[in-house]
Amino acid sequence: MAKAPVLTPQSEDFPRWYQDIVAKAELADNGPVRGTMVIRPYGYSIWEQMQADVDRRIKAAGAKNAYFPLFIPESYLTREAEHVEGFSPELAVVTVAGGKELEEPIVVRPTSETVIGEFMAKWVQSYRDLPLLLNQWANVVRWELRPRVFLRTSEFLWQEGHTAHVSEADGRAYAVRILHEVYESFMRDVLAMPVVVGRKTAKERFAGATNTMTCEAMMGDGKALQMGTSHELGQNFAKAFDIGFQSSEGVQELAWTTSWGVSTRMVGGLIMCHGDDNGLRIPPRLAPVQVVVMAVREDDAVIDRCRTLAEELLAAGVRVELDLRTETSAGRRATDWELKGVPVRLELGPRDLAEGAVTLVDRIAGSKDAAPLDGIANRITSVLDAAQATLFAESLARREARTAEVTTIAEAVEAASVGWARIPWADLGVAGEVELGTQGITVRCLVMPDGSLPDSDDTPGAVAIVARSY
Amino acid sequence: MAKAPVLTPQSEDFPRWYQDIVAKAELADNGPVRGTMVIRPYGYSIWEQMQADVDRRIKAAGAKNAYFPLFIPESYLTREAEHVEGFSPELAVVTVAGGKELEEPIVVRPTSETVIGEFMAKWVQSYRDLPLLLNQWANVVRWELRPRVFLRTSEFLWQEGHTAHVSEADGRAYAVRILHEVYESFMRDVLAMPVVVGRKTAKERFAGATNTMTCEAMMGDGKALQMGTSHELGQNFAKAFDIGFQSSEGVQELAWTTSWGVSTRMVGGLIMCHGDDNGLRIPPRLAPVQVVVMAVREDDAVIDRCRTLAEELLAAGVRVELDLRTETSAGRRATDWELKGVPVRLELGPRDLAEGAVTLVDRIAGSKDAAPLDGIANRITSVLDAAQATLFAESLARREARTAEVTTIAEAVEAASVGWARIPWADLGVAGEVELGTQGITVRCLVMPDGSLPDSDDTPGAVAIVARSY
Repeated sequence: MAKAPVLTPQSEDFPRWYQDIVAKAELADNGPVRGTMVIRPYGYSIWEQMQADVDRRIKAAGAKNAYFPLFIPESYLTREAEHVEGFSPELAVVTVAGGKELEEPIVVRPTSETVIGEFMAKWVQSYRDLPLLLNQWANVVRWELRPRVFLRTSEFLWQEGHTAHVSEADGRAYAVRILHEVYESFMRDVLAMPVVVGRKTAKERFAGATNTMTCEAMMGDGKALQMGTSHELGQNFAKAFDIGFQSSEGVQELAWTTSWGVSTRMVGGLIMCHGDDNGLRIPPRLAPVQVVVMAVREDDAVIDRCRTLAEELLAAGVRVELDLRTETSAGRRATDWELKGVPVRLELGPRDLAEGAVTLVDRIAGSKDAAPLDGIANRITSVLDAAQATLFAESLARREARTAEVTTIAEAVEAASVGWARIPWADLGVAGEVELGTQGITVRCLVMPDGSLPDSDDTPGAVAIVARSY
Repeated sequence: MAKAPVLTPQSEDFPRWYQDIVAKAELADNGPVRGTMVIRPYGYSIWEQMQADVDRRIKAAGAKNAYFPLFIPESYLTREAEHVEGFSPELAVVTVAGGKELEEPIVVRPTSETVIGEFMAKWVQSYRDLPLLLNQWANVVRWELRPRVFLRTSEFLWQEGHTAHVSEADGRAYAVRILHEVYESFMRDVLAMPVVVGRKTAKERFAGATNTMTCEAMMGDGKALQMGTSHELGQNFAKAFDIGFQSSEGVQELAWTTSWGVSTRMVGGLIMCHGDDNGLRIPPRLAPVQVVVMAVREDDAVIDRCRTLAEELLAAGVRVELDLRTETSAGRRATDWELKGVPVRLELGPRDLAEGAVTLVDRIAGSKDAAPLDGIANRITSVLDAAQATLFAESLARREARTAEVTTIAEAVEAASVGWARIPWADLGVAGEVELGTQGITVRCLVMPDGSLPDSDDTPGAVAIVARSY
């Protein structure tokens, strides 16, 4: 009798597979208020790993963490016309506090450009105060009518960087630096996700930005997910909040600002990029648990050896978890660790022990073999390195196989039914973008043929990447 | 001519001194919405250090981080009668979201017992699922009519632990463990604050708790500050949210829950415990910057040596910052580093360099001397260790000097005008507590004469610590 699958197979129903994995790997639950989520300990440990790595990179790029209030006076939002228009439909509004109706309603931050702009204006006086490089880790609220855990939630966790600069060139250089050095490199080197870095079209720009740049990844079903964005805000917020400074020549000028963010949405991207029909597959560099050491059954010698094995691996710098829950069958626990996507499982039973070996199950290669206990730490290191490389290579191969070079809208629509299409922007244009929109297809970004960022929407030779998306 | 003080002297006006230091050390600003605050990068770096240390301790105690929604249905709050009564006056309520009036108002979490209780009920089935040990780092909102930055703000950052246990004894043991192993030891060993650990009286208990335990610290003006609390919730929330489990004997039972938290209020406590008329004094184990290396003036050899000195200290594990802003006078920068409370300042000028020495300014001892550049890392280590010990000893000495043993309410009132009073709880009692309340004095906690925790409010021999407080 064939074993019933733990998850709905991806090929049968990808959205249901996603729901299944989120529930069964104990990543998250839906919260009681529409569109909110509860991030369970295992899901949160993945987010903590992401946070720690991204935070290090942000600090290395010179930005400092700070914290701005959750509550923003409604009047702040209205100061930048495009910004308020973009966010109004998604706002949650506090009208009662401390038992009283408020005179001015308070908005729960959907993003913090406005309140941070207000304080930048206070703190910046002279060109010597610039660049001002700030970041915050925070929750934000954007009311969602069609929520999906991690991907679109009414409340989500993120970091939002906000910087002010003396010139447009300086602001642009920093927004691009964050895009490449923080986001792209983190996604590529840690998440093992080969993202395309490009420029958003005017239609897809952040509300209030002059330029939005993005990292786009292909999911297991061929759709695109926006993994992170970096915006040039020009002088829009500097004008609205009067972020002025005296230049080195003694002239009063307006600053140029940027903002950039990644969120818990990345957890959803990770699941849909690497997951398979047995569950999650977490790249070793990110994995909160890289190796699980599992006692196959209750046996003092086995339990003791599992403990020393875990200590040995810990000492070698491996993130390891010990599974001694022998009251549950080894098969059931193995299924659970597969679901959770732990890269390596070491199963130890009396027979393994007698042979001085351990059963090494490689979640990513899908292999299982007996490995000598002597020198196991070295073996683990090479298995983890290989797994990291394999996940990246598989994702890249999928993206390449499922991306079509096309020149007509009809071809683009056909390609987008299974993956991405690349079409010269000159052949598509704003009208073509609108037409694709009627089919549920968007321009994810514009890139130059050599992979670099176009300077503007009109840069000759720019290629549009179009796809269905989350 | 005497130099005008940078801060209002403590002896002149302690609250103004506090406001001055928060502003001039660039720790925080008031936010635009009543009672909210903006935590500036330097203030936030202090909080990050606190977070990192407390987080490590919480994880060592076996709790796992998770994240629960900011928004709680109003109906959840009302399920536990004392809880809703305690928090109702402080709630911020969202009534409009996504452009529509909501059917059920949403409360912005003032604390998360209710929503976490709801999910504990889903996740706990059997005694095998217990203890369930959760923690979250989050923002919470309690509307403040008399806000004060860090101490009482309408929004603050904190961690809130929530656990469920099979028995009252198990829950109590864990709440006590957190109190001692996480809170007290962190405050004593890292913050250099000699906190008194005690039991709150019924009047001062957390809304919904059966027992609240606290860490209380004496501030520079003799008042008390509650630095953190750990609560036994009995079965109150387990009843309200139906957190049940099947016991090892197969009987359906209700769990026993606890909750515990520390917040950004600790930053305020740190300031008021150790600060002096020149600014903050940050204990070295906490300090985001332990040593600042300051080039006294523009000089290539000096700048080069400052850089290598900073690298040398960094390699020795010291958190170091380089100050090469020679366009600003050394005196002004020195004043600024004193304000920021960095434990050690190394000033290097051409003359120091010629002598193979550096001027070492010890912020906590208040001393200044020439130290040989050779072997400076060892010297720094011992200066930092001494500074940590000094801050603790000074705080302890102050608390002892300003705590009076009394037996009457009149004596307690007199003692509380300058510090704390210890009065046998049998001599004070609930009526005496009410009488003290009319004078703005509260019972901070009950302790046993040997410093241990009383088992109940009625434990014979318990001593009440009474004081004015923040």
